[in-house]
Amino acid sequence: MTKWVYSFSASKTEGSKDQKNLLGGKGANLAEMSSLGLPVPPGFTVSTEACLDYYKQDKSISTEIRNQVYAALAEVENITGKKFGDPKNPLLFSVRSGARVSMPGMMDTVLNLGMNDETVKGLAKITDNPRFAWDSYRRFIQMFSNVVLGINTSILESQLEDLKEARGVHEDTELDAEDLAELVDVYKQILGEEFGKSFPQDPYEQLWSAVGAVFGSWNNPRAFKYRQMNGYSHDWGTAVNVQSMVFGNAGDTSGTGVCFTRDPSNGEKIFFGEYLMNAQGEDVVAGIRTPAPINEVSKNESNRNLKTLEETSKSVYDELVSIYQKLEQHYKDMQDIEFTIEDGKLFILQTRNGKRTINAALKIAIDLVAEGILTEKEALMKINPGELDRLLHPRLDPAVKKTILATGLPASPGAACGKIVFDSEVAQDWAANGTKVILVRQETSPEDIGGMNASEGILTARGGMTSHAAVVARGMGKPCVAGCTALEISYKHKVLRVSGKEFQEGDFLTFDGGTGEVYEGEIPTIDAKISDHFATFMKWADENRSLRIRTNADNPQDAQVALSFGAEGIGLCRTEHMFFDPARILAVREMIFAITEEDRKKALDKLLPYQREDFIGLFKVMDGRPVNIRLLDPPLHEFLPHKESEMQELADVLGVDVKIIEQRQESLHEFNPMLGHRGCRLGVTYPEIYNMQVRAIAEAAAEVGKSGTAVMPEIMIPLISDEKELAILKDHALSILAEVESTTNQKIKFKIGTMLELPRACITADKVAHTAEFFSFGTNDLTQTTYGLSRDDSGKFLPQYEAKGIFPVDPFVSIDQEGVGFLVEHAVKAGRSVNSELSCGICGEHGGEPESIDFCHRAGLNYVSCSPYRVPVARLAAAQANLRNS
Amino acid sequence: MTKWVYSFSASKTEGSKDQKNLLGGKGANLAEMSSLGLPVPPGFTVSTEACLDYYKQDKSISTEIRNQVYAALAEVENITGKKFGDPKNPLLFSVRSGARVSMPGMMDTVLNLGMNDETVKGLAKITDNPRFAWDSYRRFIQMFSNVVLGINTSILESQLEDLKEARGVHEDTELDAEDLAELVDVYKQILGEEFGKSFPQDPYEQLWSAVGAVFGSWNNPRAFKYRQMNGYSHDWGTAVNVQSMVFGNAGDTSGTGVCFTRDPSNGEKIFFGEYLMNAQGEDVVAGIRTPAPINEVSKNESNRNLKTLEETSKSVYDELVSIYQKLEQHYKDMQDIEFTIEDGKLFILQTRNGKRTINAALKIAIDLVAEGILTEKEALMKINPGELDRLLHPRLDPAVKKTILATGLPASPGAACGKIVFDSEVAQDWAANGTKVILVRQETSPEDIGGMNASEGILTARGGMTSHAAVVARGMGKPCVAGCTALEISYKHKVLRVSGKEFQEGDFLTFDGGTGEVYEGEIPTIDAKISDHFATFMKWADENRSLRIRTNADNPQDAQVALSFGAEGIGLCRTEHMFFDPARILAVREMIFAITEEDRKKALDKLLPYQREDFIGLFKVMDGRPVNIRLLDPPLHEFLPHKESEMQELADVLGVDVKIIEQRQESLHEFNPMLGHRGCRLGVTYPEIYNMQVRAIAEAAAEVGKSGTAVMPEIMIPLISDEKELAILKDHALSILAEVESTTNQKIKFKIGTMLELPRACITADKVAHTAEFFSFGTNDLTQTTYGLSRDDSGKFLPQYEAKGIFPVDPFVSIDQEGVGFLVEHAVKAGRSVNSELSCGICGEHGGEPESIDFCHRAGLNYVSCSPYRVPVARLAAAQANLRNS
Repeated sequence: MTKWVYSFSASKTEGSKDQKNLLGGKGANLAEMSSLGLPVPPGFTVSTEACLDYYKQDKSISTEIRNQVYAALAEVENITGKKFGDPKNPLLFSVRSGARVSMPGMMDTVLNLGMNDETVKGLAKITDNPRFAWDSYRRFIQMFSNVVLGINTSILESQLEDLKEARGVHEDTELDAEDLAELVDVYKQILGEEFGKSFPQDPYEQLWSAVGAVFGSWNNPRAFKYRQMNGYSHDWGTAVNVQSMVFGNAGDTSGTGVCFTRDPSNGEKIFFGEYLMNAQGEDVVAGIRTPAPINEVSKNESNRNLKTLEETSKSVYDELVSIYQKLEQHYKDMQDIEFTIEDGKLFILQTRNGKRTINAALKIAIDLVAEGILTEKEALMKINPGELDRLLHPRLDPAVKKTILATGLPASPGAACGKIVFDSEVAQDWAANGTKVILVRQETSPEDIGGMNASEGILTARGGMTSHAAVVARGMGKPCVAGCTALEISYKHKVLRVSGKEFQEGDFLTFDGGTGEVYEGEIPTIDAKISDHFATFMKWADENRSLRIRTNADNPQDAQVALSFGAEGIGLCRTEHMFFDPARILAVREMIFAITEEDRKKALDKLLPYQREDFIGLFKVMDGRPVNIRLLDPPLHEFLPHKESEMQELADVLGVDVKIIEQRQESLHEFNPMLGHRGCRLGVTYPEIYNMQVRAIAEAAAEVGKSGTAVMPEIMIPLISDEKELAILKDHALSILAEVESTTNQKIKFKIGTMLELPRACITADKVAHTAEFFSFGTNDLTQTTYGLSRDDSGKFLPQYEAKGIFPVDPFVSIDQEGVGFLVEHAVKAGRSVNSELSCGICGEHGGEPESIDFCHRAGLNYVSCSPYRVPVARLAAAQANLRNS
Repeated sequence: MTKWVYSFSASKTEGSKDQKNLLGGKGANLAEMSSLGLPVPPGFTVSTEACLDYYKQDKSISTEIRNQVYAALAEVENITGKKFGDPKNPLLFSVRSGARVSMPGMMDTVLNLGMNDETVKGLAKITDNPRFAWDSYRRFIQMFSNVVLGINTSILESQLEDLKEARGVHEDTELDAEDLAELVDVYKQILGEEFGKSFPQDPYEQLWSAVGAVFGSWNNPRAFKYRQMNGYSHDWGTAVNVQSMVFGNAGDTSGTGVCFTRDPSNGEKIFFGEYLMNAQGEDVVAGIRTPAPINEVSKNESNRNLKTLEETSKSVYDELVSIYQKLEQHYKDMQDIEFTIEDGKLFILQTRNGKRTINAALKIAIDLVAEGILTEKEALMKINPGELDRLLHPRLDPAVKKTILATGLPASPGAACGKIVFDSEVAQDWAANGTKVILVRQETSPEDIGGMNASEGILTARGGMTSHAAVVARGMGKPCVAGCTALEISYKHKVLRVSGKEFQEGDFLTFDGGTGEVYEGEIPTIDAKISDHFATFMKWADENRSLRIRTNADNPQDAQVALSFGAEGIGLCRTEHMFFDPARILAVREMIFAITEEDRKKALDKLLPYQREDFIGLFKVMDGRPVNIRLLDPPLHEFLPHKESEMQELADVLGVDVKIIEQRQESLHEFNPMLGHRGCRLGVTYPEIYNMQVRAIAEAAAEVGKSGTAVMPEIMIPLISDEKELAILKDHALSILAEVESTTNQKIKFKIGTMLELPRACITADKVAHTAEFFSFGTNDLTQTTYGLSRDDSGKFLPQYEAKGIFPVDPFVSIDQEGVGFLVEHAVKAGRSVNSELSCGICGEHGGEPESIDFCHRAGLNYVSCSPYRVPVARLAAAQANLRNS
């Protein structure tokens, strides 16, 4: 028989903190605290498996589960000496959700369950506090109506307001027991008359309905959305915690409060919190009365005149201090604790690792190590690597009021503010005159590189998390919001329409690339400050990882930034970006339009010196670290001119009619350029292009090498589907390299390998590895081909796919371990089976995403490569992956 | 030590007919004939592995191979009593290529090797025939100069002509020994003076050069091209057969000839052939003298007055008869035999299975079974399935002289002749008036279906073997030449330019879709006649196959044709073709432009009756056989209007400005439609489209079922990448089916499954199989995604890929067993591991290609599905696959 229900109490506890998946975070902690001997009101947890069973049984609770609940409930009756539904000494329960991860406020809670027309009287008598009893009953009806009956309870709340007005009072607490009893009657009447619902008097009926409602709240829209945003599975389910009530509102010796064991905003080691006497938890949240500070350090502007808990109830405070110290030692982390005082006795209702800013998180982790509570390894596991990113980018001034215009994808973090422009050339012109601009485009293309670089940030209407704009912006460390579908852009009229408003070129916009939010007007930003703890923490990370971290960088500037963030090499230098420089693009176009091989070589000869300088710059900055250079990848038509003036210029240079240019453009058109004439296919059909690039690499390596600087180029052939492509192109490269070695009389170190980005290359990796000295997984394109999914077009349906739970997370953001991962693992294994020295890395966007990095570690890759600003993220994620899997 | 050289002679033979891969076809047969005790001149074969080694050693013959040649040559000297290079009794050799498959005339041959200034005299003396000796020497120098020295020998041949003129004679045979000795001197002089080459006197030097030249000829351009056209691997290499010479030109009791054991043009059982006395083989080929018939039945117009071999040399003829019978019995096939008579003694130089027409092949196979020489199973293996196709299509009148204008891809077999038109509407108009038209397009799109159907054939400038034009034409059984890149088409001026000529709309063109050749003008075609043996042969095939054969058919007409060819079900009904009907396309466009779900449903309601009628028609024709219907697959923008008039019509119907239509068109644009919003992604985002289609299927099944006809629909969800897509869409379909069952009160049989056409679906097939009742491999798209290769764009570089040997064969023509095959095998295995009843088939174009069908058999598929005209091909290929692999 499955065990569905787990008891917790001072005398019998069946769960522990390690059972979060089964009992939820809250249930596991209640069990853990009970085992620690802390004063926790007894109760039991109905497991997440029961939740899944509930859905499987068509939203009903099975008899087996009910029976286990009866048994656990009887135990609580024994311990407390109260009875559920007993009119004389009634046992009341709180019923709360609790998933394996904290989903604050997303699911439902019912308090005071077990109140009815009889038990309210028993409670009044036994507490000698009729007002408290009726207040509890009134609250219960309100909550039950909302959570279980699904009624919008504003109509009930307005009755309360009406009553206060009628009585001429301002505070709920000024209503007496009779008032509240009257209110209960009104409530019940409204439920029946307005909604046709009867409030159930049977406590068990209340219990089953409440448990079902909590299970049901797992799939309410906001919980669903929350999981989606955070990449949590919809299949986990929630547990239900049924716990005997203690009452902070049982009178003036009762109260409720919240405390933190350290400061969540900066991590300082101070114990602070606030409390409210004669109140239940929701009163604190509702802000009806100002809570009091628990001690001196908790005082602030609004509460400085209120008495502290330390002053009013020294023994309770001292007990709380001893408990928080015990909890922090036990959980080895800063705690966020909820407590209730019932008639002078302290109860702990919940403890959890407190949320905190990333700066606070670093300080707390480092302090806990200094205090001997954590080891360095344990401390490393306490930080969410993705949050490190925030340390490196400017953010919006939180003090300024903002109006959200629209929300797109948080494609590259950081805040940006400037005048909007719709054209890359305008962006560059304005920026040259000192104007801060935001580049707004339907989508960007390689032609926009200059404009993107000149802008404060990039905002696009189409495209996903790995669209051109997103990838390039992350590489540059520029803020970017992509795929903001609410934007209607007219290039012709230079106007942006959004949310019914119009913005002309030159109007101010602001956005936050970390949240995807776009704001009206000019909002000041605050520059990033890196905390002193960052370096210490990164050092620990480096000592604990086996994956090497490289960066994707196309120029010395980006490479320099990445080095300062700890990059150990370049994992991907995209040479095509170098082709768009205004000084070169014409030669590139001449090359494309060349009819004969000779003409093509002539144009390539013009490009050679530029490329050589590019590589000299990179090699110098990288100073002996590996530099992986991908030979030309995109289809040639990406380099063609689109503007008439550019076409005419090209026609003039070539001495042909502009019609010829147009016709050639058309003949280069491809139906599916992603699957077209690109990558090594260009190298096979136009060997002179790759030959020029290899020559530039070799000559640059020879020149930098001559000056005594070590150089380690890796020449990467993209998009192979068959080993023979690589073999042919490797042969070409080897003869160029040999020639340059001989003419320069310099020995050049190099490796030649390939980018695995097509399923077939992965499947046949055992053959490819005969020729390749390294594999670099291009998981962007590998995801596109494995899924048959264009990242440029998927924006139209991916949101629905995520909403319907088909894709738990965008596969362009976090690597699809099942499908794409299968191919990666297969290729690594097959490749190493014939070449045990084979170096394997990843250079797709996944290289900077923690879950993907964990996968890369497990798959046995040697390194990950990511955009410069993700390098710290990757260093920590790699350390965590190593610790998690060793 | 590797054995590189294999002797054959009456006394010692080291090879056999089963060693074709190692010894080549010719070498294996020489060994086999020697073993049979036939009169074969002794010699030895240098293996194909030696050829590969030759290339590996940078085109040199290793010492080890040379040593083995010395030893084998010494054996031949012993047997013949002659010595290589001996001035008194010289041994001479022929040196011939021989690959594992016959590549007639593609590689090189040298005869009379061993002749030099000394041995010519010995030969003259020992044969007492100086003229013969000098003639042999002169021939040898000519051949050697051509084959080994690489000289264009027309200059030598003209010397021969000059000499004949000088002597006042017409025939070579009229020149005497002194004339020929003089010619030899002139030849040697020319070689030296004109080409700076000296003719080697050392026989061994001659031998090594000749062997090297034959190895080298493996990679000459015509051999390379031939292999490419026939899908043979470039990695096989050729063997070299070094055989002691016998001389048909040794005088009037010598001669040479060729015979066939049956008639290769119609398969009749007659022994026939021709011979030429005092001649070597090349004289027969050169047509200098008219060859004589070997017997009465071999007489024809041109040779009826010449004496037969039977008449002139009865004993030789009788020996030849007994040998041919022995050979036919031994090889169990019609033989093409080359023989030489030297001084009255018969030698067999070569035998091989004779080439024949497909009609002859069928008759011969059936006769050989009747004669007890072959079993039915063996007979089935004798026919190349691909050739059956030719039986079913019209062909060009062979008697008419033709001018080839250009050659494209042989995309769909059959000959077509008609007036060219450039527009599908014009094609339909003209065809309606009884004009035969050829539709000429850059490429076709689904909009062209009507025009294609109205045409005699389709000719396109772009696109490959699986382009839209190719696939649809094969489906229709229409001839098609695709990707004919020499065509320059101007739609605007309605003109076609090719090979410097211009053709206006209305001019005649003819083409042969079986060869890809395009001809000028009107060439009459001859209708197909199916031989009486076809049915017998197909019956045997059906008895010997385990794969079921289905067809790809979208309408009752195609289905009917396929049934007549033996189809056992429909493996793929593409519902999108049904949407292009002029009566429906407007409703389709209304559906696409609908903003609300309600509007979309309204438009779909208009389509429902049409779809229902489509399926009723199919179900009736198929009469209980499975009918696999793929729900809508292409992206919606494929259905949009392109002409202004159509856009205006749509705007009027929708009551909007035509600008709105244009804008919407643009917003539906996709960068990579192949990887875009299509297939099940449409089903997920617009459930009402699939729901309409499922309803149409269900209602049609109910209606046809009511009349007592069995119906077996299979509903296929295309393009899934994740099991959840299928699960959601299956749920939708099940509820529609249940609803129709309930409203019609009819039980409907059906299956729901999916098309596996993305790598991820194959990789995760174990999950998919939980939901799918069948898998149908869509290997067109699976090839595109596995290779990252767009079939619409690859035409630009695929030819170079084939020329460079990167792709031994176009992967869209024959399935890539290593990459795509890996995924298919993985999916079948994974799918059946969770669902042992899972039905697996293939519906890509590969389903009609014999090598691919062999793969499908081995992969354990249940069926293949192909275009109607390929059904007989598939039936035979399936039988062969079964026999080959069991």
